[in-house]
Amino acid sequence: MRLNDPDRLFPTEPRVRDLARALYQAVADLPIVSPHGHCDPRWFAENERFPNPADLFVVPDHYVFRMLVSQGVAMSDLGVPRVDGGKVETDSRTIWRRFAEGYHLFRGTPSAMWLDHSFEFVFGIDQVLSPGNADDLYDHIEARLADPAFRPRALFEHFNIEVLSTTEGALDDLRWHKQIRESGWSGNVVTTYRPDAVVDPDFEGFAENVAQFGALTDEDTQSWDGYLAAHRKRRAFFKTFGATASDHGHPTARTENLDAKAAEALFAKIMSGTFAPEEADAFRGQMLTEMAKMSLDDGLTLQIHAGSRRNHSAQVFGAFGRDKGFDIPGRTDYVGALKPLLDAVGMEPDLTVLLFTLDETVYGRELAPLAGAYPALKLGPPWWFFDSFEGIKRFREATTETCGFYNTAGFNDDTRAFCSIPARHDVSRRSDSAYLATLVATGRLREADAFEVAEDLAYGLAKKAYKL
Amino acid sequence: MRLNDPDRLFPTEPRVRDLARALYQAVADLPIVSPHGHCDPRWFAENERFPNPADLFVVPDHYVFRMLVSQGVAMSDLGVPRVDGGKVETDSRTIWRRFAEGYHLFRGTPSAMWLDHSFEFVFGIDQVLSPGNADDLYDHIEARLADPAFRPRALFEHFNIEVLSTTEGALDDLRWHKQIRESGWSGNVVTTYRPDAVVDPDFEGFAENVAQFGALTDEDTQSWDGYLAAHRKRRAFFKTFGATASDHGHPTARTENLDAKAAEALFAKIMSGTFAPEEADAFRGQMLTEMAKMSLDDGLTLQIHAGSRRNHSAQVFGAFGRDKGFDIPGRTDYVGALKPLLDAVGMEPDLTVLLFTLDETVYGRELAPLAGAYPALKLGPPWWFFDSFEGIKRFREATTETCGFYNTAGFNDDTRAFCSIPARHDVSRRSDSAYLATLVATGRLREADAFEVAEDLAYGLAKKAYKL
Amino acid sequence: MRLNDPDRLFPTEPRVRDLARALYQAVADLPIVSPHGHCDPRWFAENERFPNPADLFVVPDHYVFRMLVSQGVAMSDLGVPRVDGGKVETDSRTIWRRFAEGYHLFRGTPSAMWLDHSFEFVFGIDQVLSPGNADDLYDHIEARLADPAFRPRALFEHFNIEVLSTTEGALDDLRWHKQIRESGWSGNVVTTYRPDAVVDPDFEGFAENVAQFGALTDEDTQSWDGYLAAHRKRRAFFKTFGATASDHGHPTARTENLDAKAAEALFAKIMSGTFAPEEADAFRGQMLTEMAKMSLDDGLTLQIHAGSRRNHSAQVFGAFGRDKGFDIPGRTDYVGALKPLLDAVGMEPDLTVLLFTLDETVYGRELAPLAGAYPALKLGPPWWFFDSFEGIKRFREATTETCGFYNTAGFNDDTRAFCSIPARHDVSRRSDSAYLATLVATGRLREADAFEVAEDLAYGLAKKAYKL
Repeated sequence: MRLNDPDRLFPTEPRVRDLARALYQAVADLPIVSPHGHCDPRWFAENERFPNPADLFVVPDHYVFRMLVSQGVAMSDLGVPRVDGGKVETDSRTIWRRFAEGYHLFRGTPSAMWLDHSFEFVFGIDQVLSPGNADDLYDHIEARLADPAFRPRALFEHFNIEVLSTTEGALDDLRWHKQIRESGWSGNVVTTYRPDAVVDPDFEGFAENVAQFGALTDEDTQSWDGYLAAHRKRRAFFKTFGATASDHGHPTARTENLDAKAAEALFAKIMSGTFAPEEADAFRGQMLTEMAKMSLDDGLTLQIHAGSRRNHSAQVFGAFGRDKGFDIPGRTDYVGALKPLLDAVGMEPDLTVLLFTLDETVYGRELAPLAGAYPALKLGPPWWFFDSFEGIKRFREATTETCGFYNTAGFNDDTRAFCSIPARHDVSRRSDSAYLATLVATGRLREADAFEVAEDLAYGLAKKAYKL
Repeated sequence: MRLNDPDRLFPTEPRVRDLARALYQAVADLPIVSPHGHCDPRWFAENERFPNPADLFVVPDHYVFRMLVSQGVAMSDLGVPRVDGGKVETDSRTIWRRFAEGYHLFRGTPSAMWLDHSFEFVFGIDQVLSPGNADDLYDHIEARLADPAFRPRALFEHFNIEVLSTTEGALDDLRWHKQIRESGWSGNVVTTYRPDAVVDPDFEGFAENVAQFGALTDEDTQSWDGYLAAHRKRRAFFKTFGATASDHGHPTARTENLDAKAAEALFAKIMSGTFAPEEADAFRGQMLTEMAKMSLDDGLTLQIHAGSRRNHSAQVFGAFGRDKGFDIPGRTDYVGALKPLLDAVGMEPDLTVLLFTLDETVYGRELAPLAGAYPALKLGPPWWFFDSFEGIKRFREATTETCGFYNTAGFNDDTRAFCSIPARHDVSRRSDSAYLATLVATGRLREADAFEVAEDLAYGLAKKAYKL
Repeated sequence: MRLNDPDRLFPTEPRVRDLARALYQAVADLPIVSPHGHCDPRWFAENERFPNPADLFVVPDHYVFRMLVSQGVAMSDLGVPRVDGGKVETDSRTIWRRFAEGYHLFRGTPSAMWLDHSFEFVFGIDQVLSPGNADDLYDHIEARLADPAFRPRALFEHFNIEVLSTTEGALDDLRWHKQIRESGWSGNVVTTYRPDAVVDPDFEGFAENVAQFGALTDEDTQSWDGYLAAHRKRRAFFKTFGATASDHGHPTARTENLDAKAAEALFAKIMSGTFAPEEADAFRGQMLTEMAKMSLDDGLTLQIHAGSRRNHSAQVFGAFGRDKGFDIPGRTDYVGALKPLLDAVGMEPDLTVLLFTLDETVYGRELAPLAGAYPALKLGPPWWFFDSFEGIKRFREATTETCGFYNTAGFNDDTRAFCSIPARHDVSRRSDSAYLATLVATGRLREADAFEVAEDLAYGLAKKAYKL
């Protein structure tokens, strides 16, 4: 049997479906441009085989294990490592069986669609995962993983990835990127500058991080000028490994544009180690504007990923640490929050600031009106929980009428699940084709224009927004 | 003529419609599980006939009379009783005629759908209510009400209700439930523990209520320990009348998890009668966590109905009292509000906390991510204004992709309009069938799985969430 | 070629499309009732020809030029005048060419639909605007504008406008309205009372405005009583030029209902010129309630347009002034904000208060529940960014189930782009026909009722809400 309906995500009315299929077919085989994500560059540096099915699909993917956890499976029974090194399940086949027992929980979710896509198109599986065939499918995948054709570089090429951006912290030595470069492999893997650990005063180990940042750059990062200079140096260093963007994950979209004296005083307060939450927030906000100003010089695209309340469960954070599926979105303001940054640099036509949100209510109310006016702003694609058919549909329906297509930035897969990359781009291309076909069928877009837009959404806009 | 289209609420594309119809037919005749609502247990205890059409359909139903009021009909002209006992319309035929004159106002609303369902399928009416036939239909319904087959118990059986939960305050003596038990009637009517009057410091008569609470339980409810013990006793008493859940209607979803000393001090402050609004709010929040902890012991499912700004019109509240259609939803936070409760008990797999909201923006942003992670959380169905085709559609579209189907809890009719119960469950079953058929037709769900899910949504999940 | 699909905006399923078309055809030729907008009465007073294509379609229309600006075109290159009188592009053909170069940016937007509608149905154009035909189309439109049939009054009649309301400030002498009256022309153009400049303490020149307000009315506008009396006089004066409504554009929907003494003290504080932002906000809120009370006497419908954060870009505001496409919506509360006004006058059946919002989240959560209860409230149509197919769809889907059709107020074009008026009403009539057809096809509305409702939405409800 086929795990994936060839016409999935297309509108149901036959005439519209035919047009959606035609639009999709025109873009289905375009190379993948993946300008933002969390794959590990080490995979491509070392090109070792992936260890086993559970470690490929379950243990590292918080989309997957949180759903099982939500129905009462213990995180440790899924092999998620404890921060104290305590005992967790290590038998990958047992973990896989638990995953199979809960596979029905994913019905109707994008996770099911991504998994089934990987199962069928990467691993050649033709059965729905269930407790009854869990062992067979485990063995099947395991056999494939042993095949050189399933090594990271081979899959990268098989996936038709034109460029893949990873994300590294400001303190990262980019050794894996170096190793990739030196290996002579032709795959284009670039880094992204993500300085949260030295920008966010609430980050674990912030003070030490800033000290290390100074050592690394030979700048006095205890002074405001030196601290900024260190950022400039690291940005330049990241650019030598292909970086075309920086990325900032903040709890809010707050920005500030303090004068030099006030900014210096705030930095001193932060570096004193004694500061109010409000001051930490202001500092993060000031740094977004500083980064935007550096972008005016060095051309990096600035990504703002705002609105996640990280580590919501104290218990899970204490036992298992960050990125364990317990990051919960909250209401997020952009219209007031971005004004300082926009008053400073919003009218700059050569700057690109990409906005991401986990609060869908801002699409039509705040983000589209902002991006439909300020030359420096573009909208990033639907993010995280909303990187899905319904999420993409709501995004397009809420933004297109106000800011059109050309103030958006194509697709991001934003994943650490390597095998899901083709699946995610496929969902995006199908969802956009469905949307465009509906516009054409309802007289809101000309058919020829729809084909142009489809290619822009699948390929051109991402390249342009990220200068790739 | 038929008042109700046999294919109502199904998708319009013929192939999808056929599948929706098939899904619906598979669940249409399942027994009704009504785990949360506001029917009067006295109806089933005494089994008297319903008084007349106006008192059945208009006077007690704030969904119905508020719409007429919104277009200028005086509440007193619809027979809604005044708190001062002042004169209101008492002629039920006159009230019915006023209702008929405004029946066009309900076009496109779920109220019209529920009413027409009752008219056709309960009362055998084949004409649209209008000023021209108001008297005829009044006489028709009146004649039926005189028939023993239209007494409460007979209708209960005719409606194929497997279990019906009513809602009683903590001070209720449950005499009608007792009378039902003692009558030997086989209908399963159970109670729900709703302690707002002794938990919410802003409730009318709170201090007296707490005193009465002590008298009833033989506990010293002036002390924190005695007050908690009184709750435990009443919960146990309610369980003897079938209660499997408690229910809490709070203006916000705020929770607190104070240590014993701080909780005791807050209680003392509240009992002193002099407290700030903020303290009342904190106390309600603390009590949600206390209730959740009691649920760990006694197994009651905890329902949180948050976000209604009750009695918005001072004038209407002054003249007519509570529950008169002037309760207006407002923005409601869950992600911050629930953290204290979730840090305390959110990872407990044997606890069930059901979240309800009147703020649809939280479905995708807060509720689905929370329920898709914490084992103790499930999402209650769309509530009040959103218990409708569009409301159910938005709920499914906004939550399924993040928390799936199995972190939701089936359907609640939540009504005091007894004759609307089959209509409401029918709307729910049709709306879910339409949604599932659309998923199948767009390759997001397998057809066989859709039939399983349809039955779970119509029947199984409610039984499981409420342990019925 | 046809620029506009004859079946645009109708549902795609053939049976539903047929019904939508039938509903649309029943209302397509009804006269246009335009009860709120920003056309210049001078056009109809003087009846001069429109200057040129760029000044008709680009320079005055912030919907159009902001989109070009968002993609890097300088505002001055589009001829938008600078407040300092500095140099901007004055060659209208050059501006038109820049517009043509960016015409693809409007793909999928209502602006494209309005423009193509004007191009085809007003100017008889049969080609899509592009850089290649920009000059030809410029010449084509220019030739038409020289034709007397394209003068304002002729177009007004050709557009089948039954009544057009303009909007004038409280200090306006209504000279153009006077001139229209005296001209003997039969076109019905009426004014609307918009007193923001003398009501909003943050308005540029507020103190002088209030002084001039006193001079104009021969009232002592330094005193609270005199200030209120001045409003009463101006409202009466505006009524002599056909006004049936007042209009209020406030950043929030806040209302107050202070007693006479407190209101007088607040007014004195404001007039002292030294006041906190909070006091300015309270004063605006108090004035909404004062205006509502005056409406009880003089019958004017009260419009509240809340929620725009005006002049978001300090740079654009400084260089180009107000209304330049940089007004951004923000979150807006109504449920708490309107309570004081509603407690004062909300139950008055003869008062009409129309609510408008730029925060779509309040449609279902706040506005529909309020309008579905309070007799004085009705919902204005989707506004500004949401005056579009998707915007209208979301509005109907979010409000109808709770407040029905008869608590809404028909359509507003709310435009200063005269040629877009037929296009906008056409979009509204098509969108509502699509929605109604969907309700009928899914058994939520009877077909005969749908035809009645379609006419009410296109014509009757606007006349009723505005007493036109």
